[in-house]
Amino acid sequence: MKKRIAILGSTGSIGLNTLNVFDEHPEELTLVAFAGGSNIELLEQQISKYKPELVSVADEVKGRELKKKISGQTEILFGQDSAIKMISNMDVHLVVSAISGSAGLRPTYEAVRHGIPVALANKETLVCAGSLLIEEAKKNNIKILPIDSEHSAIFQCLQGHAREDLRRIILTASGGPFQNFSKEEMSHVTSSQALAHPNWSMGRKITIDSASLMNKGLEVIEAKWLFNLEPDEITVVIHPQSIIHSMVEYRDGSVIAQMGIPNMRVPISYAIFYPKHLVNSMPRLSLTEIKTLSFYEPDMDKFQCLGLAFDVIREGGKAPVVLNGANEVAVSYFLKDAISFMSIPDIIKETLNCLTQGPLNSIEEVVETNLWAMKTADNIINKYFMK
Amino acid sequence: MKKRIAILGSTGSIGLNTLNVFDEHPEELTLVAFAGGSNIELLEQQISKYKPELVSVADEVKGRELKKKISGQTEILFGQDSAIKMISNMDVHLVVSAISGSAGLRPTYEAVRHGIPVALANKETLVCAGSLLIEEAKKNNIKILPIDSEHSAIFQCLQGHAREDLRRIILTASGGPFQNFSKEEMSHVTSSQALAHPNWSMGRKITIDSASLMNKGLEVIEAKWLFNLEPDEITVVIHPQSIIHSMVEYRDGSVIAQMGIPNMRVPISYAIFYPKHLVNSMPRLSLTEIKTLSFYEPDMDKFQCLGLAFDVIREGGKAPVVLNGANEVAVSYFLKDAISFMSIPDIIKETLNCLTQGPLNSIEEVVETNLWAMKTADNIINKYFMK
Repeated sequence: MKKRIAILGSTGSIGLNTLNVFDEHPEELTLVAFAGGSNIELLEQQISKYKPELVSVADEVKGRELKKKISGQTEILFGQDSAIKMISNMDVHLVVSAISGSAGLRPTYEAVRHGIPVALANKETLVCAGSLLIEEAKKNNIKILPIDSEHSAIFQCLQGHAREDLRRIILTASGGPFQNFSKEEMSHVTSSQALAHPNWSMGRKITIDSASLMNKGLEVIEAKWLFNLEPDEITVVIHPQSIIHSMVEYRDGSVIAQMGIPNMRVPISYAIFYPKHLVNSMPRLSLTEIKTLSFYEPDMDKFQCLGLAFDVIREGGKAPVVLNGANEVAVSYFLKDAISFMSIPDIIKETLNCLTQGPLNSIEEVVETNLWAMKTADNIINKYFMK
Repeated sequence: MKKRIAILGSTGSIGLNTLNVFDEHPEELTLVAFAGGSNIELLEQQISKYKPELVSVADEVKGRELKKKISGQTEILFGQDSAIKMISNMDVHLVVSAISGSAGLRPTYEAVRHGIPVALANKETLVCAGSLLIEEAKKNNIKILPIDSEHSAIFQCLQGHAREDLRRIILTASGGPFQNFSKEEMSHVTSSQALAHPNWSMGRKITIDSASLMNKGLEVIEAKWLFNLEPDEITVVIHPQSIIHSMVEYRDGSVIAQMGIPNMRVPISYAIFYPKHLVNSMPRLSLTEIKTLSFYEPDMDKFQCLGLAFDVIREGGKAPVVLNGANEVAVSYFLKDAISFMSIPDIIKETLNCLTQGPLNSIEEVVETNLWAMKTADNIINKYFMK
C-alpha cells in the first residue's frame, strides 16, 4: 500500500525537497494534498504533475484564480484558514509541515489534533507551542518526526538505545560567518556579510539566525520538546564542516553521531519512511576527502542569542514565544541594516523584560503572545535601537 | 535477578577490565566461573574476592598448586581442556571470551555449542572459525556480542536501523606508528619502534599487528562474520585520534558513528548489559578539547597485510586460518628482530601459496590448518627471510 502524504508548504524549499523524495519513490508514496501561499504558477505545475485530491491556497485572490485554471479532479480551497480546512477534509498517513514562520503553527497543530503523524520542519510550532503540541501528540498517540537535520540526527541516534540511558544531546552548529570576529567587529557587520553562509543555502531570515546562533537557540528549544529534555541535557558545539549533524551521549560515555553531506532530502526521506533508510541518488560522504572535522565551544558572550534560548526554556510559559517574536522583528530590521547585529539579543532581552509571564493554554494565546511580542519589539527598536 | 557470567581469561587485560565492570555493578552481576592460564597468584585473589563456583587453570601443575591453596566452595579444574570442561558444567547467561590467541578458540566454540551467548574479545575465533561459529550460533539462536571497540561501535550503530538498509561499514584504524614512514624507511624499523602505539595500551603481538594494519585486517574478517557482510561492504579509514570507533553508512547516505574516549570497559559493559548503556565512572568525551578528528585512506601498498585480509575473505575456506597462523609466526620473529617488518606480508603470501585449499568442516580442521600454517611459515622464514 502506498503511503498517503500531505504537504503544508509545497512551494517552499522544504516542500520542493519533499517532492524530490516523491520523485525518487513514486511507487511508495501518494501525494494526497498540499497547501501553498500564493505562488499559483508553481502550484498549477505541481497539481498537473501529482494530481492531488485537495490543494489549499492561503491568498484568497490567487486561490480563486487558480481554481479557475484547474480542470481536473483536484479541489481547490482558498483563504487564510484553507490549510486548516484542508487538514480536516483529507485522509493521510503523514503531514509534512513545511510552511515557514508563524503561519505554519495552526495547520500543524490541527494535524496533530486530528491524530495525523507530522514530519515537522516548521520551527515556530515547537518553539512557540511546544507544550501544547506535545500534549496533543501524546493524547492522540502519534509521532512527531523531525525534518531539521540536527533533530533528525538526534532522532536517528536515539533509535535502538533506551531513552533513560541518555546523558545529553550535543547539537552541532556551523557557527556562521562571524566565529572569528571580535565583539567590536561584530557590532559593525552588515546584513550582506551575515547572509554569506558557508554550508547551507537557506532563506534570509534563517541565515541571519545562523549568524547570531539564534537558529541553534531555536533548535535547543525544539529539542527540549521533541526529546523531553532538561536544559542541562542539551549542549551546543560549533562544528564548522556541518558533517556531524548532531550526537547523543549515553551514560556509559558512548556517543552516537549521525553524519552526512548537508542535504535536506536525507532527513525528509527518513521522516517519511521512518524507520527505514531508503536509497537515493545523493553523493556519498567521504571522510577521507573532507579530511578534518573540528569542534569548539560557542562563545556565549559574543553570541548571546544562544544563551537567551536556554534562559527562556528555564523560564518557560510565554518566554519562548516572546523570544521568537522579538527575534523575528529584530532580524527584519537588521536585514534592512536599520539596527546593529549586536542589538538583536538586546532587543529580545528588553522585550522579555516587558512580559507579564503566564502559562499558554491555547494556540490562540500563543498567537496573541507572538503578536504582542512583535509589536513590543517594534516599539522598543524604534525608541532605542535605530541606527 | 542477577546476570550470571563466566569469564574465559580472567587474568588478561580484557578479563581485568571485565572485572572492573563487575566492581561497578555488583548488584547486577554474579561471577559464576572463570578460566585462567597459569597466573595462580592473581587467580587466588580473584577467587577470594568473587567466590565463583568454578575456576579452571590451563597449566596442570599450577592448577594442582592452586587447588591445594583454595579452601572455600570454589571447585578448581586444571589441564589443557579444563576451560571446556568448565563450560559444560556451569549455568550462566553469558560467557566473556577473553582468552587471547588460538587457545581461546575451542572454549568459545564450546560455549556457543552449549547455547550460551558470548561476549567475544578473542580474535582467532571469528578469524579462523567464523563460519562454524556463526552457523552454531544461528542453530542455537544465540547472540555473539562483540567486545572489540570497533565491532562494538558497528553493533551499536546497527541498533534501531534495518540491516537491509546498510550500504557499508567503515572501520576506523589509528594507523599505527609508521603512517608517515616511506616504504624504504619501513623496511628498517625495529620491533621497539613498532611497539610504541599512540592510543591504546596493548599486548606486544597486537601492537605489531596495529603497526602493520594486520590488526585491522583481522577485524575486517571478524566483521564479515559478525555482521554477515560482503568484502565490498567493508571499508577501512585511518583515523589517528581513535575517537570514532567505527561507523555504518546506510543506503540513504546517513552515516551513524559511535565515539568515545578509547577504553575497553565501555564495549565490555555494553556487551554484558546489551542493549543498555549502564553508567560508569569513566571520563567523558569532550570533542571541543580534542578539537580535531582527521581521516585518510590507508596506503594499501605500504600496508599489504590489510589487502591480504580482504583477499582471504574473498578466497574463503582455509585461507583466513593460514593468514592468521602465518602472521602469528612472522610477528614472533619480528619481535626478536630476526626478520624485517616489511617481510611479514611476504611471509603470509608465501604460506598462502603453499596451501591446498579446502573447506573447514570442524574445529579440529581449523586447529590442524592453523598448526600447518605456523609450521609452514616457520620453514619459509628460516629458508628465505632471516636477516
